[in-house]
Amino acid sequence: MTARILIVDDTPSHSRALEARLIAEYYQIATSQDGLEAVRLAQAWQPDVILLDAMMPLLDGFAVCHRLKGDPLTQHIPIIMISALQEASDRLKGLDAGADDFLSKPVDPGTLLVRLRSLVRIKRHLDELRARGEAARSLGLSNESMAMPSVSGARALVIDDQDLSAQTLQDSLSHEGILPGRAASEMEVMALTASIPFDLIVLSLSMAVDDPLRVAAMLRATDISHDVPLLLVSSQADRARVLRGFDLGANDWLALPVVDAELRARARNLIRRKFYQDRLRADLGSALEMALTDPLTGFYNQRYLMRHLRGLLAGGSPNGIAVMMVDVDHFKSINDRFGHSAGDMALKTIADTLRNRTRVFDSIARYGGEEFVVVMPGAGAADAMSAAERLRTSIETMNFSPEPGIKAQLTVSIGVSYTGSQSTTPELLLQSADQAMYLAKRSGRNRVEMAASA
Amino acid sequence: MTARILIVDDTPSHSRALEARLIAEYYQIATSQDGLEAVRLAQAWQPDVILLDAMMPLLDGFAVCHRLKGDPLTQHIPIIMISALQEASDRLKGLDAGADDFLSKPVDPGTLLVRLRSLVRIKRHLDELRARGEAARSLGLSNESMAMPSVSGARALVIDDQDLSAQTLQDSLSHEGILPGRAASEMEVMALTASIPFDLIVLSLSMAVDDPLRVAAMLRATDISHDVPLLLVSSQADRARVLRGFDLGANDWLALPVVDAELRARARNLIRRKFYQDRLRADLGSALEMALTDPLTGFYNQRYLMRHLRGLLAGGSPNGIAVMMVDVDHFKSINDRFGHSAGDMALKTIADTLRNRTRVFDSIARYGGEEFVVVMPGAGAADAMSAAERLRTSIETMNFSPEPGIKAQLTVSIGVSYTGSQSTTPELLLQSADQAMYLAKRSGRNRVEMAASA
Repeated sequence: MTARILIVDDTPSHSRALEARLIAEYYQIATSQDGLEAVRLAQAWQPDVILLDAMMPLLDGFAVCHRLKGDPLTQHIPIIMISALQEASDRLKGLDAGADDFLSKPVDPGTLLVRLRSLVRIKRHLDELRARGEAARSLGLSNESMAMPSVSGARALVIDDQDLSAQTLQDSLSHEGILPGRAASEMEVMALTASIPFDLIVLSLSMAVDDPLRVAAMLRATDISHDVPLLLVSSQADRARVLRGFDLGANDWLALPVVDAELRARARNLIRRKFYQDRLRADLGSALEMALTDPLTGFYNQRYLMRHLRGLLAGGSPNGIAVMMVDVDHFKSINDRFGHSAGDMALKTIADTLRNRTRVFDSIARYGGEEFVVVMPGAGAADAMSAAERLRTSIETMNFSPEPGIKAQLTVSIGVSYTGSQSTTPELLLQSADQAMYLAKRSGRNRVEMAASA
Repeated sequence: MTARILIVDDTPSHSRALEARLIAEYYQIATSQDGLEAVRLAQAWQPDVILLDAMMPLLDGFAVCHRLKGDPLTQHIPIIMISALQEASDRLKGLDAGADDFLSKPVDPGTLLVRLRSLVRIKRHLDELRARGEAARSLGLSNESMAMPSVSGARALVIDDQDLSAQTLQDSLSHEGILPGRAASEMEVMALTASIPFDLIVLSLSMAVDDPLRVAAMLRATDISHDVPLLLVSSQADRARVLRGFDLGANDWLALPVVDAELRARARNLIRRKFYQDRLRADLGSALEMALTDPLTGFYNQRYLMRHLRGLLAGGSPNGIAVMMVDVDHFKSINDRFGHSAGDMALKTIADTLRNRTRVFDSIARYGGEEFVVVMPGAGAADAMSAAERLRTSIETMNFSPEPGIKAQLTVSIGVSYTGSQSTTPELLLQSADQAMYLAKRSGRNRVEMAASA
């Protein structure tokens, strides 16, 4: 897999060496010697990964990283920081600035290529989600802000068969407010991941089992855990297996002995990315839901109603289907006397009664401005008439105040139709209910009428 | 990257050898010796790739492939057919049954692993799209059927700097009804892909340029061509470069000399998969659009209106914003006298007039049952009043027949509000327009009134 890589390094000889190595692997490269320019380039060129030198004059790598991760235009681009520094504190500083990994100079080409592949894979996946999620967001179909979420309360699974090291990992995660579970065998992993939606999995490669990478492979090949961030923990000497783990889909690596602050920083970054992904998916989901619901009442809209009725009729509902058309009486005069917001309140009040006075398997749609349709699968004519009558009475006796101190009575006219022995269409069924409802109106309102025949 | 692989082979020793090889690479394996069982397993276990022996007793590999590709539950799972047969006609039979590739026995492990990686990558990408696209579909947010589309009219780009071989490829694609363009250099590729949305790219590795794989890498690293299927054409001897090409993101390979029917079969399969992906994306897109529009008139809904107004007000529209609240007079009586469908017709007729009598940069929303809101950026009080007056006159003089032979006059009452010097909110702006509209109603309907102050 190829990708666009931005190399940021103030020493031209360093960046040239990296560039040559990556071009040989068919990557598309851009370079920058200066932090500020790098930020602009990242915004405009939208690379798939950024390799960022930690030590630069003026704006250093940590500051550049911080800016990139704080900018909605670039926050999703993975960053590998590269530094001559071996200090754990610098690694931490990079991770805290949001870097996805930290490699030491001189960069080992094998390690770099494996990390690039892994990060590009994640980035591509995110791109697809972003394309849709951001569309939903830009259309205003999401209410949440994209601010950095807290990881407190996130759920992690520590996979380690040695009690002592497992405890160390769990304690460290707990200090961050993360709730850590533990599994000591592949069976336990399968059982736990099947029942708990984890936000992070920490896998120790020092387990005594045959080959801990089998657990990683199983997690990655299983739908339920496929997208959960996977952090490997191993000794420095175990580098070859860690690289294999990245190829299998691991997302990050922590070297033993565990440095509490580093584990926490890596866990934080991984969980935040997971949350970001979750929110993009949720935005899409809510957009889909919004396409089918009425914003005022939360009921289904006409679009869904027609589809639902078509499905029920095609399924040949054995005991028939009854439909009620419920129209609010003199609704216009509520609007005229008390304004739109009072009208909305009246509709909501009636909607609540409809929700509470129908069966769980009935479905309700807002059909027009002041009309609702209740679909009652399995209901015969007599059932539907008595249900409609109960509804009418409930609404008639409701309390409704369009303004403080003022009471107004709300009533509805209901038309009922039902599927007889002959087959029918959603359109005909609704039309009969509609005609019956108009008959109820003409007969004085606040009444229920049954369609002549559906 | 790991994945679930289903091996279907009636000779246990063959499938055991493959299984061992793939387990060593951390793949999760299931095996089946029987075609019918394999179909059931594929449905239930949902593997990421299926390795399918061509020659089996009872249901042979071609028939199994055909069934899997014809079943919505399994049609998206890539299939590699494996056969001892070297005949081109068998390869064709496999491709025609929908197989994604065809490998000869004994299977070369290197080739198999590269193909697996490439197909798993595509499958994963599709899975994410499917998860959302199918949700939209199951909610009825898509009207198109998922039937196998025709590739006729699809657009392909042949990249080859040698006229003769380019012409052979183009002719072959033309016979399939595909429209082939041609590029002979990387510059031409960039120019053409930037302006034409291709459904397939065919890249000859026999080009005289430095390294044709650079072109493949460029196509894959560029957003616009990233997801377009890429078919490599090369001599049998060039296998190493083809495998490198797969790693860079190529999707298929055709060996020289070009067999017309094989090129066409491969092109068909690749384009069909592209179309499938396009439709999943389109379903999502239309779901997003539906969330913001009113099905009857196609206008924006309240949800969009509020967001749009908020955006305009936040942008501090320098010349102010005017808003019209347009309410149909005596709408209820149209419904009462002629039924709902006549009411809908009346709304559509008025909607058409609104659309034709407003400026291109105005936006219109359906606000409630019989109410529309027109948002006019940059309009002052006088502009808005005269625009509203023109609208009112147009509607008053429209022809409307609720039933054949019957004419009815439609009129509207309009309230206008606008942003003054002080700042305001969408809610206040709409409320003033609403109050002005009620004033118009009380003053006799078929009138325009201006809000006292917004």
